Amino acid sequence: MSIGAGTDNRAVTYLGPRGSFAEAAVLKWPGSSGAELLPATSVPAALEAVRDDVVDYALVPIENSVEGSVSATLDELGSGQRLVIVDEVVLPVQFSLLARPGVALSDVRRIATHPHAQAQVRGWLGRHLPEAAVIPAMSTAAAAAALLEDPAPFDAAISQRIAADIYGLEILADEIADTSDATTRFVVVRKPGPIPAPTGADKTTLSLFIHQDQPGALLGILTEFAVRGVNLTRIESRPTKKVLGDYYFSVDVEGHVADERISEALKGLHRVCLDVRYLGSYPRHDGRAPVLRDGVTDVDFTEARVWFERLKENG
Amino acid sequence: MSIGAGTDNRAVTYLGPRGSFAEAAVLKWPGSSGAELLPATSVPAALEAVRDDVVDYALVPIENSVEGSVSATLDELGSGQRLVIVDEVVLPVQFSLLARPGVALSDVRRIATHPHAQAQVRGWLGRHLPEAAVIPAMSTAAAAAALLEDPAPFDAAISQRIAADIYGLEILADEIADTSDATTRFVVVRKPGPIPAPTGADKTTLSLFIHQDQPGALLGILTEFAVRGVNLTRIESRPTKKVLGDYYFSVDVEGHVADERISEALKGLHRVCLDVRYLGSYPRHDGRAPVLRDGVTDVDFTEARVWFERLKENG
Amino acid sequence: MSIGAGTDNRAVTYLGPRGSFAEAAVLKWPGSSGAELLPATSVPAALEAVRDDVVDYALVPIENSVEGSVSATLDELGSGQRLVIVDEVVLPVQFSLLARPGVALSDVRRIATHPHAQAQVRGWLGRHLPEAAVIPAMSTAAAAAALLEDPAPFDAAISQRIAADIYGLEILADEIADTSDATTRFVVVRKPGPIPAPTGADKTTLSLFIHQDQPGALLGILTEFAVRGVNLTRIESRPTKKVLGDYYFSVDVEGHVADERISEALKGLHRVCLDVRYLGSYPRHDGRAPVLRDGVTDVDFTEARVWFERLKENG
Amino acid sequence: MSIGAGTDNRAVTYLGPRGSFAEAAVLKWPGSSGAELLPATSVPAALEAVRDDVVDYALVPIENSVEGSVSATLDELGSGQRLVIVDEVVLPVQFSLLARPGVALSDVRRIATHPHAQAQVRGWLGRHLPEAAVIPAMSTAAAAAALLEDPAPFDAAISQRIAADIYGLEILADEIADTSDATTRFVVVRKPGPIPAPTGADKTTLSLFIHQDQPGALLGILTEFAVRGVNLTRIESRPTKKVLGDYYFSVDVEGHVADERISEALKGLHRVCLDVRYLGSYPRHDGRAPVLRDGVTDVDFTEARVWFERLKENG
Repeated sequence: MSIGAGTDNRAVTYLGPRGSFAEAAVLKWPGSSGAELLPATSVPAALEAVRDDVVDYALVPIENSVEGSVSATLDELGSGQRLVIVDEVVLPVQFSLLARPGVALSDVRRIATHPHAQAQVRGWLGRHLPEAAVIPAMSTAAAAAALLEDPAPFDAAISQRIAADIYGLEILADEIADTSDATTRFVVVRKPGPIPAPTGADKTTLSLFIHQDQPGALLGILTEFAVRGVNLTRIESRPTKKVLGDYYFSVDVEGHVADERISEALKGLHRVCLDVRYLGSYPRHDGRAPVLRDGVTDVDFTEARVWFERLKENG
Repeated sequence: MSIGAGTDNRAVTYLGPRGSFAEAAVLKWPGSSGAELLPATSVPAALEAVRDDVVDYALVPIENSVEGSVSATLDELGSGQRLVIVDEVVLPVQFSLLARPGVALSDVRRIATHPHAQAQVRGWLGRHLPEAAVIPAMSTAAAAAALLEDPAPFDAAISQRIAADIYGLEILADEIADTSDATTRFVVVRKPGPIPAPTGADKTTLSLFIHQDQPGALLGILTEFAVRGVNLTRIESRPTKKVLGDYYFSVDVEGHVADERISEALKGLHRVCLDVRYLGSYPRHDGRAPVLRDGVTDVDFTEARVWFERLKENG
Repeated sequence: MSIGAGTDNRAVTYLGPRGSFAEAAVLKWPGSSGAELLPATSVPAALEAVRDDVVDYALVPIENSVEGSVSATLDELGSGQRLVIVDEVVLPVQFSLLARPGVALSDVRRIATHPHAQAQVRGWLGRHLPEAAVIPAMSTAAAAAALLEDPAPFDAAISQRIAADIYGLEILADEIADTSDATTRFVVVRKPGPIPAPTGADKTTLSLFIHQDQPGALLGILTEFAVRGVNLTRIESRPTKKVLGDYYFSVDVEGHVADERISEALKGLHRVCLDVRYLGSYPRHDGRAPVLRDGVTDVDFTEARVWFERLKENG
Repeated sequence: MSIGAGTDNRAVTYLGPRGSFAEAAVLKWPGSSGAELLPATSVPAALEAVRDDVVDYALVPIENSVEGSVSATLDELGSGQRLVIVDEVVLPVQFSLLARPGVALSDVRRIATHPHAQAQVRGWLGRHLPEAAVIPAMSTAAAAAALLEDPAPFDAAISQRIAADIYGLEILADEIADTSDATTRFVVVRKPGPIPAPTGADKTTLSLFIHQDQPGALLGILTEFAVRGVNLTRIESRPTKKVLGDYYFSVDVEGHVADERISEALKGLHRVCLDVRYLGSYPRHDGRAPVLRDGVTDVDFTEARVWFERLKENG
């Protein structure tokens, strides 16, 4: 593993190699400023580095990654020593065609990239380099890095803009993805500790374990959220690896554990689920506050409590 | 109104007249022991007597009454100065054929009773007194009372057993209802005050007001109960008299405001309803404890709270 | 019973006596035009007359009656030989003070009426006849009728306007109810037969029997309606008289069995209920068409069927 | 792309390269017998080959893949020309340590594999080869294939058993995954056509598009299933790539479009969703028939229909 020794200073690992999408994400994360940045070879390795106190934080993809396995992230967070998410970073998925200085677009015969990236630039390649051979690489960053080998095993790499700086490459073409609005979402995790203060536009991530894949179990879980006006932004069912037929749901919801509606929903889930694994409350990357229906603001909860206490005392 | 002046001692009114089903119920109620008992002419009059401090308690029918209007009870409890239920009494609906001493079954040509009672002894009458004329009376008790007039306006009354004692009548035939398992439920109400202690087998009565007869409103209300494992034992929709199209639901649920699941459900309803009118928590007449599903006992609620507070503090 | 022999012509019975609210309702019902009108002494008697082919139709109160027991109507419709509702009539609940010609308001010392009516004119009486004694009567119509006795047993009756015409009385004061917007709803029932054609603003009445008072049973029933966008306008839980703990729900819903959403909901209920008792589809008294959410019109159902059949055939 | 030209005979592509988990899966699939098998470089490439009629079938991972991106599979099936699933294959995730003949376990200093595989054999490596360096490869199969280069760039590969046969390698250690019950699920897709006959133990896959990430939308969708007793075995929310904030749900449910409960649920979803994309009904790999609650068998549906039609005709 390429993660170095722990230091007194803050250290952050990310899904590498150097020049990866995750490196672009970690540079965008304000918390990385001044920290030591260490690429990890895999999501499990990155999380293990946090668990082993090798680093303080890990940044890993959790949704729609071009390269990293998002399932791996979910499953790693859903088992083992608990870690919590403290922030999220969302990056547009874009690609550039990179080459060593002096290579022109017309020179390009052989291109390396990761197959998922290849699939997303298929249209552009068909229009601009219909004759080029595409060679699969471990990652888009690895493709870029390999251009420095001597002799270079291919003429160009489909990678991200950040890799040009890192490896001293030229950008032959920029923003070559066929659709322009795909994004990858990364999360920053650390060991449990003080929860980031609520901002009014937060998310909470949970793993909810249920006994069996019962017809009503998922409906019951969603009802716990709905009855408190809690909106889901992501849900994914996952088989647990322990027992055939046992499931968990990985969900993101709008809100923070400091919000009354989240507090009551979590306690409700604790009562009906086999287990609730809390994976953090943190600010949304887009700062979009939830639209709450009537009756589920903190003020509504407080008023209801005052009303009930008076009634309970006075009949 | 036949309700007398208030006294230092406890006074209880009930839906009269003397000898009514409600009188049988009030005598069965332990709280009436040693109290002054005062018949009222109607449910509204009985409740008004409590509101005006003329009496301490009123016992009125709330379900399946032979004579009193149950709707009237619900609507009177649902509006005006709030009263609360502190106990319930359930009586089997039974009828006896009563006559003045000296009258034999074979002498009976004319019988008085309330039409609803008549409908419930139709089979017996057809078999035993097929030729008798039936004269409608204000109530079964009023029919019995009228036998004391001179001359008696009819030969016998279909009434209840208690009326025989009260009016000095003979029971010509007992338990003559065609079906034997109907019951009437009465509630004892008073002004708000300390709530009867929970017994583990309690009921709570509520009026839940909603804005409109929306397709989802009732489902939403029931979900507030269901998500906390609260079982309903009665529900009735009622138009409010104020605005066309506005409704309220009168419900009985299993449990006491001292139960955590009721506490959370009531607060939830307070948040989603236009208004929640609390009408009391009181022991069930049959002492039957609720069967609770997993996760909704007080212990479950407490464990969830402990878990959540720890999580909120430590991340 | 005052119901006469069956004739070749149409005969309609109603909850009597002559001059009752139900008589006002039956006169308002277009179907009564030219029919023989026969008062019945009770709701069960009225329904029995239909079942026994003594009459063709019965008009009985089903909601908020001042006098008749609505529970009795529900329970009578919910058991025994099945009858169906073919129309509804809604009347405002109003009262008039009636007296024999020559009696002035200032002469009135003793007034007869039904206790429920008394409760609804309490304010007016307090303001205009605070000294008058109120004598309970079997019904407001019976109070009016008794004024014809010689000597009259009291000076005036609180009854309805129609009773003035029928008994030749004068109206001393009109519209004396304390609130002006209460209504009573009556239904017209007959033996099963061709269902009235849909008008676009219809109601369907059902009795839904369930095994036990399960926490989820009512929620399940409401979900069958909600998922097809069917709105309830009335619900009432009722214990069945057969077995302790078994319940049925009496409901009115917006729509007609000819509507696709009602058709699918009824079939769904048939699958989940112990029994579904269909009590008729009929035009709403107010002609108000339901507001349907997206996806539940007949067109939506038809489009879904066409889509599915094509898919099933072509994969 | 390594997919060859279409032939008269059946051709099946799978996520390559040769020796991949997907090749093991395709060999296990009965439909591949006698067919031409063609590795594809990526999931999109495999599906494109079907859409372009280059092959008849593609086998791609849809759940828990070690290497292939499952999200890519879902998104590719959820957009573009519609394909349907006709079968599924589930493989245990297992790994073997492979080397060229003559290499012993004690000779192994450098090992290649895919990082996800590395994460799953971490325990075994720690116990048996704690000193070995691990070199990342594009895939476990690619690691095995590279052992044939001259000179071999490393001593051994962590790959699957099938790669030993294909590349003429020896198995130094078998079943070295740290947990033994993980599985990968693959699906076989083709262009729409006759749906495989129901077996009584089938699955149906759908993509359900909704307008917005509304709090109630997912609950509404699940209710459409629950009310017809349809059980979900997988759910995953996915942002569509078109408009920010628009979502779809990828779900697997128990049952076949020939089942009445699936038929009604699909039509219900068609009415409430923006779009329903049908992705096939096919036999479950494990032959496990669903446990149906009361009221949702085909017999129940038929009985309800017969009951309703009679009622609609006769009132």
